[in-house]
Amino acid sequence: MHLVCLDLEGILVPEFWVEISKAVGVPELSRTTREEANFDKLMKSRLDILEKNNLKLDDLKQAANLIEPVNGALDFVRELRQRTQLAILSDTFEQFTERFMELFSYPLLFANVLQAAPDGSVIGYKLWQQEGKEAAVKIFKSMNLKVFAAGGSFNNISMLRTADSRCLFRAPQMIRNKCPDIPCVDSFGELSAKISRFLRQPG
Amino acid sequence: MHLVCLDLEGILVPEFWVEISKAVGVPELSRTTREEANFDKLMKSRLDILEKNNLKLDDLKQAANLIEPVNGALDFVRELRQRTQLAILSDTFEQFTERFMELFSYPLLFANVLQAAPDGSVIGYKLWQQEGKEAAVKIFKSMNLKVFAAGGSFNNISMLRTADSRCLFRAPQMIRNKCPDIPCVDSFGELSAKISRFLRQPG
Repeated sequence: MHLVCLDLEGILVPEFWVEISKAVGVPELSRTTREEANFDKLMKSRLDILEKNNLKLDDLKQAANLIEPVNGALDFVRELRQRTQLAILSDTFEQFTERFMELFSYPLLFANVLQAAPDGSVIGYKLWQQEGKEAAVKIFKSMNLKVFAAGGSFNNISMLRTADSRCLFRAPQMIRNKCPDIPCVDSFGELSAKISRFLRQPG
Repeated sequence: MHLVCLDLEGILVPEFWVEISKAVGVPELSRTTREEANFDKLMKSRLDILEKNNLKLDDLKQAANLIEPVNGALDFVRELRQRTQLAILSDTFEQFTERFMELFSYPLLFANVLQAAPDGSVIGYKLWQQEGKEAAVKIFKSMNLKVFAAGGSFNNISMLRTADSRCLFRAPQMIRNKCPDIPCVDSFGELSAKISRFLRQPG
């Protein structure tokens, strides 16, 4: 059996924190792992910013619900799921993904969780697993699944290298330069063609 | 995060080989693990019967496509997937499940595979994993998922016992007697209520 593992942000939806930052009008919230590579530090600074601006979990969810999928992503996912199984491996928070899971007809999702106090303040987060994406692909392979993985950012590279087949998707030039052995595609048509080639391999 | 693992046959769809046997008019094909507990022996006798009756993989698939989901199963799955994630862990063959995966909007599926010769004759099968259901639940738990499992036949008991929460579904009296510690429910409403209780536990 085959399984396709995709990152969510950068392939199917835009970066959540960047879009949420625009929706709530707080530019500091748009910092991502590109500006602060240490995820825990980044999250702590986000929690501070949320507190300062009196933003609650519900405000973030409302802002996330305004985000539109990337152009072409809905058709791509619909067609993909008729051909093979899909898992979304994401470093985002499942509270942001609800609308998208519905739009994409509920693929398997692994994501982190934001923790809120009874008054709705965001007070922490829980990673679903350390190095979760790479660990998940290893586990899927141990379940006799043949795995294709695609993503566009640094936090996907170890997942990509662990999968049986792989490609980058709309990756920044810096990542393409650092991973010249991993092909990069820039459209859903090309990604779909890569997956078709993968599906022709015995499962 | 929570995950519900369900058997396919006996919960959502009737027994495939029983229904296929009726559709192709070959009563011997209706034998299941109830009559022959050794799965490999059972499969070898099925392959013999298929050969004798000149039945090809496509004939089986056509017959499987005529089967209707269990009454209420479509609504149950639709509502379940809005609330949590679903994996189908099945001992059937993925060639029989295609129509159902579409009807159920493509949940994660683990199933076995029938192997065919170029002329379409069924010549063997491939298990996705030995003791696959139990192994899968162990693996999901190792991925920090909280797992609820339900099934109605003997081949589900180890999966049920491995899960964090469980129930039997429409199990024969013999199984209920042998597993008095596992609650058994007989309707989708009751199953849904059990799952609601499970989802209220922290993920």
